[in-house]
Amino acid sequence: MIGDRVRAAYARIAEVDRPEVWIALRPLDEVLAEAATIDPSLPLAGLLAAVKGNIDVAGLPTTAAAPSYAYTPAVDATAVARLRAAGALILGVTNLDQFATGLVGTRSPYGAVRNAFDASRISGGSSSGSAVAVALGLVDLALGTDTAGSGRVPAALNGLVGVKPTKGLIPTTGVVPACRSLDCVTVFARDLRLARRTIELLSGPDGLDPLARPDSPPSSVEGVHRLAIPTAEHLEGLADGWASAFADVVGRFRAAGVEIVEVDVTPLLRAAALLYEGAFVAERTAGVGDHITAHQHLIGTDLDPTVAGIILGGTRFTAADVFRDQQRLDELGAAGRAALAGTTALLTPTTTWHPTLAQVAEDPVGANARMGRYTNFANLLDLASLAVPAGVVDGLPFGVMLTGPAFSDRTLASLAQLLADPPVELFVVGAHLSGHPLNHELVAAGGSCVGRAETTPDYRLYALDTVPPKPGLLRAAGGASIAGEVWRLSASGFGAFVAGLPRPMTIGTVTLADGRTVRGFLTEAIATETAEDITAHGSWPSALAARTVDPALSPG
Amino acid sequence: MIGDRVRAAYARIAEVDRPEVWIALRPLDEVLAEAATIDPSLPLAGLLAAVKGNIDVAGLPTTAAAPSYAYTPAVDATAVARLRAAGALILGVTNLDQFATGLVGTRSPYGAVRNAFDASRISGGSSSGSAVAVALGLVDLALGTDTAGSGRVPAALNGLVGVKPTKGLIPTTGVVPACRSLDCVTVFARDLRLARRTIELLSGPDGLDPLARPDSPPSSVEGVHRLAIPTAEHLEGLADGWASAFADVVGRFRAAGVEIVEVDVTPLLRAAALLYEGAFVAERTAGVGDHITAHQHLIGTDLDPTVAGIILGGTRFTAADVFRDQQRLDELGAAGRAALAGTTALLTPTTTWHPTLAQVAEDPVGANARMGRYTNFANLLDLASLAVPAGVVDGLPFGVMLTGPAFSDRTLASLAQLLADPPVELFVVGAHLSGHPLNHELVAAGGSCVGRAETTPDYRLYALDTVPPKPGLLRAAGGASIAGEVWRLSASGFGAFVAGLPRPMTIGTVTLADGRTVRGFLTEAIATETAEDITAHGSWPSALAARTVDPALSPG
Repeated sequence: MIGDRVRAAYARIAEVDRPEVWIALRPLDEVLAEAATIDPSLPLAGLLAAVKGNIDVAGLPTTAAAPSYAYTPAVDATAVARLRAAGALILGVTNLDQFATGLVGTRSPYGAVRNAFDASRISGGSSSGSAVAVALGLVDLALGTDTAGSGRVPAALNGLVGVKPTKGLIPTTGVVPACRSLDCVTVFARDLRLARRTIELLSGPDGLDPLARPDSPPSSVEGVHRLAIPTAEHLEGLADGWASAFADVVGRFRAAGVEIVEVDVTPLLRAAALLYEGAFVAERTAGVGDHITAHQHLIGTDLDPTVAGIILGGTRFTAADVFRDQQRLDELGAAGRAALAGTTALLTPTTTWHPTLAQVAEDPVGANARMGRYTNFANLLDLASLAVPAGVVDGLPFGVMLTGPAFSDRTLASLAQLLADPPVELFVVGAHLSGHPLNHELVAAGGSCVGRAETTPDYRLYALDTVPPKPGLLRAAGGASIAGEVWRLSASGFGAFVAGLPRPMTIGTVTLADGRTVRGFLTEAIATETAEDITAHGSWPSALAARTVDPALSPG
Repeated sequence: MIGDRVRAAYARIAEVDRPEVWIALRPLDEVLAEAATIDPSLPLAGLLAAVKGNIDVAGLPTTAAAPSYAYTPAVDATAVARLRAAGALILGVTNLDQFATGLVGTRSPYGAVRNAFDASRISGGSSSGSAVAVALGLVDLALGTDTAGSGRVPAALNGLVGVKPTKGLIPTTGVVPACRSLDCVTVFARDLRLARRTIELLSGPDGLDPLARPDSPPSSVEGVHRLAIPTAEHLEGLADGWASAFADVVGRFRAAGVEIVEVDVTPLLRAAALLYEGAFVAERTAGVGDHITAHQHLIGTDLDPTVAGIILGGTRFTAADVFRDQQRLDELGAAGRAALAGTTALLTPTTTWHPTLAQVAEDPVGANARMGRYTNFANLLDLASLAVPAGVVDGLPFGVMLTGPAFSDRTLASLAQLLADPPVELFVVGAHLSGHPLNHELVAAGGSCVGRAETTPDYRLYALDTVPPKPGLLRAAGGASIAGEVWRLSASGFGAFVAGLPRPMTIGTVTLADGRTVRGFLTEAIATETAEDITAHGSWPSALAARTVDPALSPG
């Protein structure tokens, strides 16, 4: 069965004709043989995976997209070993912006990676091949890396989830350094839950990476979440339609009960600029500068001229420059933390535009610089971040990003899940009202009362013969407005609640007098045939009061 | 009354004739006027303090021991403002190794600071004047700074406590940077409790220092503490007599119930070497290199040639060198943490020798380099550390140091307190024995049973007429060995226990058969006059068994 999935994936790889996605693909027979040995009880058993070409996969070439740099590791990177141990099947290693230096996906002698939705547009980078492999359905999940946004920007441009965990949670043992102290291993998937499950399976010190850190999640946040968003000034210059797509996401978070506050993100954007404009670029020089210097004759063939220029550009900085820039970064970080104080995370678009391949070719550095406005600062300031799809604009994916303090990974995921699983609003009119006998069921399901409301004037209310006494609501000619309460529940809480619904109650759609359409308690019409019509009372509490029945004393 | 203390201090300052200790001393009248305004309820009310000359004191010159660098701040450094707010009276600012670069105390145009105990020897540095001011009794406490050991080495050489807290606990706002990201404000005092109380009063983010961190102490350690000490190889090259003084301290910790394990501290010593030999020295260049470059004509007069050489030496490193050295440091840090795993802290001598002024003048860099072997790595690796006096060798102070993880500050202090307050051993023979009715009193006082023991054969035991029944022990001719238990209590626990002692019991000295002399329960002789002599039973439990009295059932 896993073998069938593998064969289908290889057929699809051939069919989509995107050879630039892969730097090396394993032979089908070899993967089929491995598939036959997988323990089906493993947490990722039989899921198909791709690995960015700067992460060691034993037996496949690690190139960092520079053929001259290639070596074939005998040992998997820690993240790859853990992925395999969890039962995933690795199909191959993917293309990237060379030395993970770029957010465009075009800086590779293995070819510019084309977007999964529009082949004239960039994939985003640097984890270009990994993102497109997932987006095209060639694999279920893929590993990327992220120093400046490489695990998030291509997620946004290809309609994926891209999770960049807190630095150090996933060891970088076996990863070619971009900026060694900033690099993170990331996960792409179409679904947030799979991405998060994978992150958890890859996390934890390995005794080899000196920067690995154990997880240290804060105690859970109580009460309402507050999300920061940039002020209008810092949302300028977005691609056409993206500002309103972002506003829509903000509205969805508000509707889900999240408080939104505008903050001045100037310190964060200034920190972002330091990553390439300041001396920090010399960490790239320290990592692979010697290789480029030794292979200058290959610039233009094996070595990408833009990438080589950036990495060798680090040689112009002195050691004292690093410490001066670090001071500036510390100051900007403190100012940024102060700006975000009291919020759970920062919500932004993931990137600012989606250029064509031609636009990037015209201005490789300028086009790239616009991509990282909201991503560049996260690793410099030790923040966790994740990108999630958030709609479609002009036929192309639009994505947003949640960025929060180190170790806020799970909190960011719960917040992002609100976009995937918007909360459900339920109109109640009877025994589930506040203070009534079954209200505890809503509370137990995690519900919270949003407020009082009434239906459009075309409903009838009946006193049913149930224990405890309940009213039955029916849409019917000659009805009236019936008053009740709107409760908000998570999708899972709502599901559990409805799963326990007793006859003759039903859940349907109710239109409220203010125009909203929400889920609501209705009843089977058959139950109302012999019941008293109490529509004239306008609500169940009024009807009860008129009948002097105390619901709190009723049986059940 | 505070005024009297101030006058006495100024008289003593004149009397000791150590003008090199101070860079600026406030006029007596001004300090007396301030003394009259101090609220006596403040925690440090009326304590006299000195401040290292690289920390801003409003109205006094901040020089960092470079006259050309001098400015007069209008505002106190955060640490100074908090010291004043706690009621301390600042008498003046003190001499230091210029730009806090040195561990000797001789690198200053304001004069080489002579040791408090032997004027031919160095004070240690860089917080030289602050340490000597406390050691000579001119002030009660003093602020220093510590980047490579500047708050600990001079504490050791002058018989003081020097507390270097976790980086960021005390904001460095208003401190001239040495290595900005590594600098810590420290406290010197003659007593550990005063030093710790002062540290607590100075701690907490000030909203100005971007590197300030709130305290984050780990949950308290359960069970026996384990201290790491270097292997013999890494204790070589100590000054004459220091190895055996260190061994004595190790023995005192062992006697106090602390487990000692030898660990290979090679990674820590290699990290220590990186501080001056690697690119990290360029953080000094970033801080004050421009000043030195602009005043090169003053090298040899205002500017110390050794200090200028070190700081300008940082210009030879590239930005990439910093990142390469940081990688090396990360690796050494991980190896160091692995070596110390399972221990509470590392116990070392604070420094390795105590040179004369002449020895340092002969070889300024070489002599200095030997001082920082055990101190240089602490701030690089984000460790807390404190130095405490631990004996006298050849008439000069010898000191040891406890170094532990970030935020272990309080734990280090409790451990160090064991040297100041060695535990008390108490011999018990009666109702306080394990399983007997009053044993709970020892447990409540924090006691633990060390083992069974018996007295020399010259004691007599009597059955007293008390509730619950107790025996009385007396040293008397014709006696025998009496068996009992030795319990160990902290000084404070022992004090509380003895404070509640009922008549006719007394606490005195008991000699044990194995030669030990410990505290022990005795009784007033008058109480034994009419009591039964049960010496022949050899112990209270045996006597009880013979009389078939069950102590557990006895009243009380």
